[in-house]
Amino acid sequence: MSANSMGKNFVITCFGESHGRCVGIVIDGCPPSLEMTEEDVQKEINKRRPFSNQISTSRREEDKVEILSGIFKGHTTGAPICMLVWNKNVQSIVYEQIRWKPRPGHADYPAIERYRGFNDYRGGGRFSGRITVAFIMAGAVAKNLLKKINVKVLAHTVEVAGIGLPEEPSLEQIKSNVYKNIMRCADRKIAKVMEKAVADARNEGDSVGGVVESIALNVPPGIGDPIFDALDADMAKALFNIPGAKGVEFGVGFNVAKIKGSTNNDQYAIKNGKIITLTNNSGGVLGGLSTGMPLIVRTAFKPVSSIQKKQQTVDLRKGTTASIEIEGRHDACIVPRAVPVVESVVAIVLADHLLRRNYFNSK
Amino acid sequence: MSANSMGKNFVITCFGESHGRCVGIVIDGCPPSLEMTEEDVQKEINKRRPFSNQISTSRREEDKVEILSGIFKGHTTGAPICMLVWNKNVQSIVYEQIRWKPRPGHADYPAIERYRGFNDYRGGGRFSGRITVAFIMAGAVAKNLLKKINVKVLAHTVEVAGIGLPEEPSLEQIKSNVYKNIMRCADRKIAKVMEKAVADARNEGDSVGGVVESIALNVPPGIGDPIFDALDADMAKALFNIPGAKGVEFGVGFNVAKIKGSTNNDQYAIKNGKIITLTNNSGGVLGGLSTGMPLIVRTAFKPVSSIQKKQQTVDLRKGTTASIEIEGRHDACIVPRAVPVVESVVAIVLADHLLRRNYFNSK
Amino acid sequence: MSANSMGKNFVITCFGESHGRCVGIVIDGCPPSLEMTEEDVQKEINKRRPFSNQISTSRREEDKVEILSGIFKGHTTGAPICMLVWNKNVQSIVYEQIRWKPRPGHADYPAIERYRGFNDYRGGGRFSGRITVAFIMAGAVAKNLLKKINVKVLAHTVEVAGIGLPEEPSLEQIKSNVYKNIMRCADRKIAKVMEKAVADARNEGDSVGGVVESIALNVPPGIGDPIFDALDADMAKALFNIPGAKGVEFGVGFNVAKIKGSTNNDQYAIKNGKIITLTNNSGGVLGGLSTGMPLIVRTAFKPVSSIQKKQQTVDLRKGTTASIEIEGRHDACIVPRAVPVVESVVAIVLADHLLRRNYFNSK
Amino acid sequence: MSANSMGKNFVITCFGESHGRCVGIVIDGCPPSLEMTEEDVQKEINKRRPFSNQISTSRREEDKVEILSGIFKGHTTGAPICMLVWNKNVQSIVYEQIRWKPRPGHADYPAIERYRGFNDYRGGGRFSGRITVAFIMAGAVAKNLLKKINVKVLAHTVEVAGIGLPEEPSLEQIKSNVYKNIMRCADRKIAKVMEKAVADARNEGDSVGGVVESIALNVPPGIGDPIFDALDADMAKALFNIPGAKGVEFGVGFNVAKIKGSTNNDQYAIKNGKIITLTNNSGGVLGGLSTGMPLIVRTAFKPVSSIQKKQQTVDLRKGTTASIEIEGRHDACIVPRAVPVVESVVAIVLADHLLRRNYFNSK
Repeated sequence: MSANSMGKNFVITCFGESHGRCVGIVIDGCPPSLEMTEEDVQKEINKRRPFSNQISTSRREEDKVEILSGIFKGHTTGAPICMLVWNKNVQSIVYEQIRWKPRPGHADYPAIERYRGFNDYRGGGRFSGRITVAFIMAGAVAKNLLKKINVKVLAHTVEVAGIGLPEEPSLEQIKSNVYKNIMRCADRKIAKVMEKAVADARNEGDSVGGVVESIALNVPPGIGDPIFDALDADMAKALFNIPGAKGVEFGVGFNVAKIKGSTNNDQYAIKNGKIITLTNNSGGVLGGLSTGMPLIVRTAFKPVSSIQKKQQTVDLRKGTTASIEIEGRHDACIVPRAVPVVESVVAIVLADHLLRRNYFNSK
Repeated sequence: MSANSMGKNFVITCFGESHGRCVGIVIDGCPPSLEMTEEDVQKEINKRRPFSNQISTSRREEDKVEILSGIFKGHTTGAPICMLVWNKNVQSIVYEQIRWKPRPGHADYPAIERYRGFNDYRGGGRFSGRITVAFIMAGAVAKNLLKKINVKVLAHTVEVAGIGLPEEPSLEQIKSNVYKNIMRCADRKIAKVMEKAVADARNEGDSVGGVVESIALNVPPGIGDPIFDALDADMAKALFNIPGAKGVEFGVGFNVAKIKGSTNNDQYAIKNGKIITLTNNSGGVLGGLSTGMPLIVRTAFKPVSSIQKKQQTVDLRKGTTASIEIEGRHDACIVPRAVPVVESVVAIVLADHLLRRNYFNSK
Repeated sequence: MSANSMGKNFVITCFGESHGRCVGIVIDGCPPSLEMTEEDVQKEINKRRPFSNQISTSRREEDKVEILSGIFKGHTTGAPICMLVWNKNVQSIVYEQIRWKPRPGHADYPAIERYRGFNDYRGGGRFSGRITVAFIMAGAVAKNLLKKINVKVLAHTVEVAGIGLPEEPSLEQIKSNVYKNIMRCADRKIAKVMEKAVADARNEGDSVGGVVESIALNVPPGIGDPIFDALDADMAKALFNIPGAKGVEFGVGFNVAKIKGSTNNDQYAIKNGKIITLTNNSGGVLGGLSTGMPLIVRTAFKPVSSIQKKQQTVDLRKGTTASIEIEGRHDACIVPRAVPVVESVVAIVLADHLLRRNYFNSK
Repeated sequence: MSANSMGKNFVITCFGESHGRCVGIVIDGCPPSLEMTEEDVQKEINKRRPFSNQISTSRREEDKVEILSGIFKGHTTGAPICMLVWNKNVQSIVYEQIRWKPRPGHADYPAIERYRGFNDYRGGGRFSGRITVAFIMAGAVAKNLLKKINVKVLAHTVEVAGIGLPEEPSLEQIKSNVYKNIMRCADRKIAKVMEKAVADARNEGDSVGGVVESIALNVPPGIGDPIFDALDADMAKALFNIPGAKGVEFGVGFNVAKIKGSTNNDQYAIKNGKIITLTNNSGGVLGGLSTGMPLIVRTAFKPVSSIQKKQQTVDLRKGTTASIEIEGRHDACIVPRAVPVVESVVAIVLADHLLRRNYFNSK
């Protein structure tokens, strides 16, 4: 299987570069008969649009999806679905210097090693956050599938620049607030504080990171394929493939190191005839299998690597240290734009695993 | 590919259950000519032996590896290597009740859903920590491979029961101390404190969790297969497949949410003619590719789910809530035994990725 | 995926060598709840037993299957099923010379190149026909699955030593005669002629080849996963993995080069409310999908390579030509023993593809 | 792995339909630094152009390749290469009736079953021979790779309408004659006879089949990954994925059933210091591994299913038999156009397997 493919039953294969002709995705394994339009995809793509203010990059991305195959008369056919967005307004000249002066925090240096200097370095090439538009396109199909069995994926910003939420927001707050503020935060007041922190960092020529939480509702119990395709393992792999991800945790996550078993264990109860747990410290996954409770996963994203401060690097031609100042305008915080990407990635992994268990009636 | 297989070039396939006849592994893709003996494997298996004191489970595991195929005249042949340990001294009667009274924190309930009640529930079956002996066996082969290009994998306990290390230990401390105390901790004083916390929890009929850190040295730069087989993504997937793992982070990990880009970015320098970074906040991985710096990853393990306190569960036969008390003696903390497992898993993923890049001269 | 694994949903992983400790198989993906006993497997293994007469090899193979995992209380659990047969009565000394004097027709020479001289050469190692006992073990599980939806796989010898069947036998003849004669031929008279030809070849120190036909009944229409996992393509791949296979054809096969479209096209009709074709020249597969008609595939097996005549080879140590005489007693014709192997392989591929289409109710 | 993907190290993923927007391919795993231009691909595409005479379909295919990703400054980058041809001049109205009146010999009926009636049926959709332009595009990249180690793939028509070659042509005849006659035959006289047979069939509203032979030169010995990724097995799978293939054989192929071991075994010799075999009955493959001799494989292609004669089918709406007459002009014989497709497919499989053995220096 290709390194640019992911999944077993819902298989996505990504192609394209930041400043090449396009960024595209092939989705294979989606069952026939699913209603699917370009509008469904466009709506999702629009969620990761840059914001028309100081937080966003100045590059205008008016990404318009084109479906090239696999949809016929408004439904999936069972054939591979290829979709892409064309790249426009790309200026590549400013990237010439990174061929020999790798930017700290970026993949420039290991990529030169990996691809022996032949990788398309313009705009970060394959390592650009722009590639995530492909995840969004695939996620749109996954979400349409999940909708058929009422599985819903939410995501929201829970920390930026060290500013967290005072308390876990309700599902209603998440549903109604997240896409109404540019921080994608369920708490509108905190959103304002986060926004200011991002603006401050930007004004200093610096950047900040944060944490995105995703919650998947109505996942049936018993989903996952232990031992090596555990649901959490596959989810973590997919999330770490989002540029900038540095940590992934489920439920109480790293706090399991601080609490006792008697606290951490989620005890069972019955509610409306359904088996539930009284707490959800596991984040809805035990032994690599879904428990039927909300699936909760958090992903930490690092501060944007492109900062305007002068940094030390090496000059690969001369074999000496050198300094670099990164030109152009860049996002000071990618966390808000990562929110719909996380949503998409979680949806993709769930679609893949639900297909393995024969949901969606695909005989 | 099978859900009980992992890897692309160094492919491991696991079989066996906790209280079945054996736990085994098939390793496919190991190049021919590697020196390999049963002793090499046994030495690794012994590292995860339970300890003869209050921290350990009372089940005597005298696991003796048997190599069934793939080794001939002391070398790998290029054919699949099958190895197993036979299960002995298994008492399964105490497990009958978990068929209808799922234990909180264990996979009992989702497993019943997933396998429609046909899974081997004895001793946790496939979900038992005992399965990790298979990871150890595969890790022994991976380590022999890595040795050929001087890649070394270390692991050590960095937190137990909320007790952490006061400072990052030196490589020398890790190398010399970890296997000399039962907590697998590089700081012998802290080890004593951790040990007491574990004993206290055990005496209360409770359990504690912790964090294991792994450090891989001499990984060449440019290893990894973006975008979907990023080195950190594959590593995270593998680590989450260890029973009890709830979080994985690289380098500064979740702290990226609190620091700025100017702090987080690792600036480049040249040392002894080699490109290095002045800090290693990335944990040795950028854009899914190794940087050539030490690869640093931490995994959080939850408190052992089997505690002796009475807990609430449901009776699946009656459809009512019920209480459960888990009999038998169990580890109060699996973190120390997870240390060699983490080591093995990291080695397996590195072997897989190094093989993809044609190290080990396997033409 | 491992080169010693095959399939996507019903995944088999093979290990072991002809003169090593055992030959084994891991089957992953078999749904839970299938009734399965060692007797079911043993019955299939016995079908490929050598015959106590002049056609067979003199090595007494009293293969007794052992199930190591994945079966519990007489049913599959959903966990990987590992089964093996131990090797007994192996005499390896006679094989020493093939390390430097490769036997014509055998894989000795390319294997030395492939494995750099480290492969287990004793008895052909991984290239021995003995490995097919693993296919049989996996086939036994596949057959139990197929039985649930009434799919039945037959196989029979249709040509040996240039001696073919005068006419296509009826299904009844195949069912009742094949395992009643040592040639596995549906026509008992022809069986006698074939048997004599094999005996004659053996007496001359020579060997003969033949063709095995397989017929799968009640395969539902629409099975297969074009374009690259076409049912016929996957079937052909699996059949070519049987040692000695040199050709595979479906339906009229190579004769399509000689007939016209108007003859070859299978026209449709309705019989008992079911869509059928008036002829079955396609062999039950169109566009890589099953048509619902019997699936018919023929595989050509070469004459056994181990003959007693003196042959020319090279001495790899000296870099000169040399002559070789192969010692020991060998089958003069493997076709009859290939019959149950073909049956198993066809069953395995069908099980894999039917699982992909959600037969067997595995949610 | 996706059913529309093939290969492990050189992985191709196909998308598009006959009358959709395009037919495309994503190639993943091609190492960086390979010189590659659109002209290299276009040259190969032109080889399968329909011929401007009575043998060809009247649809004018002026396929012009567009490379969308993975090539930068005239070299591969190591990122996935996406290429496509846009569909033009497609008339889909004539295909409406096949929704309920499946054409004999085509995949219409099983495809309706497989995709529950949602497949794009226009022009055969995914089952059209037009999809093979994707194989050609991937083959162009594979051929550029193979060129680096001097591996060359030839293909030629050896039988059409029962008319075969009187003798095996020389490599020189194949190289110089095949693309100089519309039958792609190495013997120009026989080409004329074949051409007439095709024209006759066409005039009768009928069609004919044939056999394509492929010869791969300079394949090093020891290529292949037994037991399940045997070189011949993977090759056969790939060839059966070409629409219309009904049989595949290596070397003497089905004739192994008629000759003895002493004849069939290829004895070894040394020529110019290199190990060769005196005959090449194996077709260059033993035990699933290349022998270093020319790799010879033949594929039988059925007569084109679209004939102008009236045929019996069923009316799926009414549940009755019905008759069908296929409109439009169609090839009466696809064998000549299959020649470059076979060439491409063989090159793709070889590139995949050579990459597994670390040829092409891709560390």
